[in-house]
Amino acid sequence: MNRLIVQKYGGSSVADTDRIKGVAKRVVRHRKKGCRMVVVVSALGDTTDKLIELSREITDSPSEREMDMLMSTGEQVSVALLAMAIHKLGYEAISFTGAQVGIITDTSHTMARILKINTRRIEQELKKGKIVIVAGFQGITMTQDITTLGRGGSNLTAVALAKALGAMYCEMNTDVPGVFTADPRVVPNVRKLSRISYEEMLELASAGAQVLQPRSIEVAKKFNVPIHVRSTFSDEEGTVISKEVKTMEDIVVSGVTVNRNEAKITLCDVPDKPGIAAKIFKMIAQNNINIDMIIQNVSRTGYTDISFTVLQRDLSKTMKVAKKVADKIGAGIVTFNDNIAKISVVGIGMRSHSGIAAKMFSSLARNKINIDMISTSEIKISCVINRKQATKAVRAIHKEFGLGRTR
Amino acid sequence: MNRLIVQKYGGSSVADTDRIKGVAKRVVRHRKKGCRMVVVVSALGDTTDKLIELSREITDSPSEREMDMLMSTGEQVSVALLAMAIHKLGYEAISFTGAQVGIITDTSHTMARILKINTRRIEQELKKGKIVIVAGFQGITMTQDITTLGRGGSNLTAVALAKALGAMYCEMNTDVPGVFTADPRVVPNVRKLSRISYEEMLELASAGAQVLQPRSIEVAKKFNVPIHVRSTFSDEEGTVISKEVKTMEDIVVSGVTVNRNEAKITLCDVPDKPGIAAKIFKMIAQNNINIDMIIQNVSRTGYTDISFTVLQRDLSKTMKVAKKVADKIGAGIVTFNDNIAKISVVGIGMRSHSGIAAKMFSSLARNKINIDMISTSEIKISCVINRKQATKAVRAIHKEFGLGRTR
Repeated sequence: MNRLIVQKYGGSSVADTDRIKGVAKRVVRHRKKGCRMVVVVSALGDTTDKLIELSREITDSPSEREMDMLMSTGEQVSVALLAMAIHKLGYEAISFTGAQVGIITDTSHTMARILKINTRRIEQELKKGKIVIVAGFQGITMTQDITTLGRGGSNLTAVALAKALGAMYCEMNTDVPGVFTADPRVVPNVRKLSRISYEEMLELASAGAQVLQPRSIEVAKKFNVPIHVRSTFSDEEGTVISKEVKTMEDIVVSGVTVNRNEAKITLCDVPDKPGIAAKIFKMIAQNNINIDMIIQNVSRTGYTDISFTVLQRDLSKTMKVAKKVADKIGAGIVTFNDNIAKISVVGIGMRSHSGIAAKMFSSLARNKINIDMISTSEIKISCVINRKQATKAVRAIHKEFGLGRTR
Repeated sequence: MNRLIVQKYGGSSVADTDRIKGVAKRVVRHRKKGCRMVVVVSALGDTTDKLIELSREITDSPSEREMDMLMSTGEQVSVALLAMAIHKLGYEAISFTGAQVGIITDTSHTMARILKINTRRIEQELKKGKIVIVAGFQGITMTQDITTLGRGGSNLTAVALAKALGAMYCEMNTDVPGVFTADPRVVPNVRKLSRISYEEMLELASAGAQVLQPRSIEVAKKFNVPIHVRSTFSDEEGTVISKEVKTMEDIVVSGVTVNRNEAKITLCDVPDKPGIAAKIFKMIAQNNINIDMIIQNVSRTGYTDISFTVLQRDLSKTMKVAKKVADKIGAGIVTFNDNIAKISVVGIGMRSHSGIAAKMFSSLARNKINIDMISTSEIKISCVINRKQATKAVRAIHKEFGLGRTR
């Protein structure tokens, strides 16, 4: 049996019919090497936006089930067109919706979770030698209602299919050539990583690198599916995301990221009593606001300041909740700062190499950059600084750890 | 149990989101009267054309299976949007694809035939009091491949659902107010028919009236499903198409139609031997050309002329075949006339009333209109005349039979 690979092409890779023809050529090139192929496709470029616009013309609060019914047509158009484009090149291909290939999900419309995949039909078609094309982002419930998987859903479809079919790896074809040591738009001289572990990729993604959503990486990690992130528009090798291998340990730091999308809120003079923090963050969670970092300083006076960061778009909502909470618990004023940036250093080598934090902090100090908040995980250190100094900071740290191409 | 009706809305009825909102109001008005409702919807206005255009950008000869995959998204968008619009009015509605409601078809992609309908899911939702919205034009094979039903497919979906669910009647909401005694754009003073039999409607449709495709009428006739053809844009009653009832027999002629889409081909000097006609029309059928009328004059010389009509768009193809046939059978030259029109008079009363043909012919004669070909069925008489005289002819005949509003 020839090796099986799952390829995924995102919306920008199939933005128009010319690009679809390009993707068809790319798929066929792999096929010629003797691979069995399953290809997962997103909706054409702006299709999703157009469908949302149509629903908005009808109502401000569409039913989630009907939104899924509407949105899932986008990928269905893509898969049919890609199948036609592959036929045109003289190869056999067949397209499927999520429902047709048995991607069974729960009933959480617009953000459904995959429960299981019945791979029988795909395997039948693969045996006939066909290239199988599957609509990403969508599934079907046990009661035959169409669902969508939410943000990053097509990546999730690809990884889940790779696992279910026992594929060798899952190739994510996107508009960037791979995972870099830092954002190439911010830092000159970045280096593309040839390998990275799931854990590092997860930290990079949550720290602001926008190559892949954490969700599909988590699933890939859980089932040990290697992911190859690469550009649709070039034949260059990209970055392989896989479980940690020995050789990776030589690399202490894999990347530096900057996240400019957060804002900081501070509750001043919070009574330093047990259960207060729980009260605060319970109320915030009840309002569906996601918190990133939390800092509480040591109290000397019986009162303390508690700071946390949220997505900037949630700032005004969060301020309202925070003021209510402050009243309730007898805290002082609530302040905010939406001029912050979070700089993170990620690397599995940190676990065995000491001094990474010190190196990062002194690099910032030497560049006269003040640190506002610090938070750490086993393989990540994040600092909140003034947003104006973000570019300077990420460049300095990138250089400090010798991540550039010239090292 | 309240009475159940099936409504169908065509592409022009749901051309944009404003019209979809209008359809939602219309559906809800029926609902308020206490009806249980199943609504079949076509694709939004020009969606189908846009999807075809996309496929043409990829290939000239798309796979029929993939075309069905592509085209079926059009209706899926419509049903989701209509469900949202009904929700907005405060009523419960749920949308389904053909696959979801179990419209099982054969595997003839792009022109599939409905084999059976599993009505379980629809009945469940109707019991919950929901308005059920079904994507027209599409179904699914036993092996879960999406199919489409071809021209007039949404009407077929509606009639088939009405039969399967035991609906009281099937309402076809369209851009015309009903079936008229003649085309209102051609004949002044036409009258809308309040009732007409399936047989008459079939003859009118095949004779050129474009209100409904013959296919859905045939199915309605087979299962005795009454059809109410009416305008989406008015509350006026339309035309009910049903099995022949006693009172209908008073009406001798129901309508006059004109068909300007045909051309006539004549094979001259055909040897008048048994089996020659069979040879000619077998070869034409093998080339997938549909013949309408066939005339063979009495032979006196051992040679005869055979004339027949085809759709004008098939003319050049047919001429090529006809010339080959003429060579083969030793006939003379092949001529054509693409300047013809077919005028037809339809009515079940003809069966019991003699003299209808004579009345039609003398009306044409009085107006100095020459008759080129004649063909008759039990309830229809058709004459081929010069296309330039078509309007004059249809007006004269309409008046001759007293079909206008003033009678």
